Amino acid sequence: MTNRSFEIVDVTLRDGSHSMRHAFTKEQVRETARGLDKAGVNYFEVSHGDGLGGSSMQYGLSKVNELELIETAAAECGQAKVSVLLIPGIGTKYDLNDAVKAGAKMVRIATHVTEADVAKQHITLARELGLKTIGFLMMAHMASIEKLVEQAKLFESYGAEVVYVTDSAGALLPHEVTERITALKNELSIEIGFHGHNNLSMAMANTLAAVQAGATYIDGSLRALGAGSGNTQTEVMVAVLEKMEYNTGVDLYKILDVANDVVAKYMPRPQEVTGSSLMMGYSGVYSSFLLHTEKAAKRFNIDERDILVELGKMKAVGGQEDLIYEVAANITKKKFAVAPKP
Amino acid sequence: MTNRSFEIVDVTLRDGSHSMRHAFTKEQVRETARGLDKAGVNYFEVSHGDGLGGSSMQYGLSKVNELELIETAAAECGQAKVSVLLIPGIGTKYDLNDAVKAGAKMVRIATHVTEADVAKQHITLARELGLKTIGFLMMAHMASIEKLVEQAKLFESYGAEVVYVTDSAGALLPHEVTERITALKNELSIEIGFHGHNNLSMAMANTLAAVQAGATYIDGSLRALGAGSGNTQTEVMVAVLEKMEYNTGVDLYKILDVANDVVAKYMPRPQEVTGSSLMMGYSGVYSSFLLHTEKAAKRFNIDERDILVELGKMKAVGGQEDLIYEVAANITKKKFAVAPKP
Repeated sequence: MTNRSFEIVDVTLRDGSHSMRHAFTKEQVRETARGLDKAGVNYFEVSHGDGLGGSSMQYGLSKVNELELIETAAAECGQAKVSVLLIPGIGTKYDLNDAVKAGAKMVRIATHVTEADVAKQHITLARELGLKTIGFLMMAHMASIEKLVEQAKLFESYGAEVVYVTDSAGALLPHEVTERITALKNELSIEIGFHGHNNLSMAMANTLAAVQAGATYIDGSLRALGAGSGNTQTEVMVAVLEKMEYNTGVDLYKILDVANDVVAKYMPRPQEVTGSSLMMGYSGVYSSFLLHTEKAAKRFNIDERDILVELGKMKAVGGQEDLIYEVAANITKKKFAVAPKP
Repeated sequence: MTNRSFEIVDVTLRDGSHSMRHAFTKEQVRETARGLDKAGVNYFEVSHGDGLGGSSMQYGLSKVNELELIETAAAECGQAKVSVLLIPGIGTKYDLNDAVKAGAKMVRIATHVTEADVAKQHITLARELGLKTIGFLMMAHMASIEKLVEQAKLFESYGAEVVYVTDSAGALLPHEVTERITALKNELSIEIGFHGHNNLSMAMANTLAAVQAGATYIDGSLRALGAGSGNTQTEVMVAVLEKMEYNTGVDLYKILDVANDVVAKYMPRPQEVTGSSLMMGYSGVYSSFLLHTEKAAKRFNIDERDILVELGKMKAVGGQEDLIYEVAANITKKKFAVAPKP
């Protein structure tokens, strides 16, 4: 166990919350946590899909309070430890305190890739609470490598022990992951992590690229249960990395058992690359844009995919939904413009 | 169209036949063929999942005669051409003649990776019939690179215009694809193709690796519809390769439309990496072994996955199902053996 090549962090019980519409039951969490622990996974995450405090009208109400789910999971842990996700602005320092009381031993403080500075106080608190403390740079494809390094260094300076390249939209390709992880390895002295999504069917290949470039924390989800097209599939990751002769520290048959005998039975539908999740990865936009884009496309009678591609080029971020109508109007203008006379 | 970087060959209507339990209707084939043609795909395949003549008790009876399906598809073709698959031993030269009458313009003659020599007469006939003629080396992961090159050269010597590395079990990893395609590019003068499956979530990454190593024919399937965990997903391939600045010649929105508005509506279930398909890729065995292995595991009270891994190591091939019981017996013997006294 001591000489594993990296830590596999399973996020089924957090990122999977999106696919479960935040309706995880205690029984589902108990069985999944037990299976992960027995398979030899050292860290797994339990929180609302949008992190601690995410249960709300805006992000979706949790069926069961996440603190109860954290407690339930922690009770199943032998060697494994429960992680939580905290997005400053959604969750608060109070939520983190509560999570620790419920049994959390690790936290990932997540910000948009250009906004690490909002995480300083949370990182400080997490260290004070004695948690394994990780910085999580979301939508990492949206920043240049220089910007990414700068932001990761902020996390490092605040006291994070690991910093993640988080490919929230599943928009990165393997060579781009290699470049990013390599740059961080060269410029930082803390450990580097990678969290992948499958919108372009590249989650597994990106994770392998990350490991080969020196990442020592990698995320996965059983049966790929997670937002968009889902995550890197934990059990596949174990199989592939074993074939590549890495020491995962995770038992392949046992992780397959919890994936297939537990998670596959409660997931509402298989994860796949659909038209909209593919367009998310292709254009590199937030999933929260999809609904507004569909409406704007109808109103202006244009293809919603043209709007997504344009938003991606503009690097629009969450909260800029107003932009969607402006973009739609511009596309319409161009489409129906009369060519100037010669 | 003339300067596309490679040809995308869509196999939804052939490899997808496995997932459809060979129950494609004319209407499904018509709509799919129309969409592929309109999207700019130049070649797509229509046959029983196991190739021409595959409709049988052993391989599964087709609901509609494949010749009628080929005719239906051919009637929808503007620039696109219908391909067929022929596995000597399952299909015959008579089947190929009939397929040509029905409208087929391309054939892929498929053999196990070590048995290209059985294809000589079929390749000769295909060229005589004026077909675009391709050799298809199945279960390519089971041969050494030297063997693969030797077998591909046989296809070349018979008159094949393209030879494929066919990763039937989805067992290859990207660096292994790179090695194989590179070796074939160096040693042959005909074009090289790659056909990927997703059992280890690597179909897309493997396809990209193949293209980067010089493959000019690549296979995909809409919504990944195909055997095992499914194929490289055609519409994802178009998006990723466009992002990589290749000229696919295929319209992304139109290919997304046929995937989501046509294929997604008739596929019986989404394609995903399940426990058994993952074990196929991990151990590199035939899907036809799964049922026998399950039975043997029950009889000997051992884990069926141990049998699969052992069969993979032995490089067991189709037809060697007897081996399964022998392997199971040996595993039992080892498991319950009394350690010799010191």
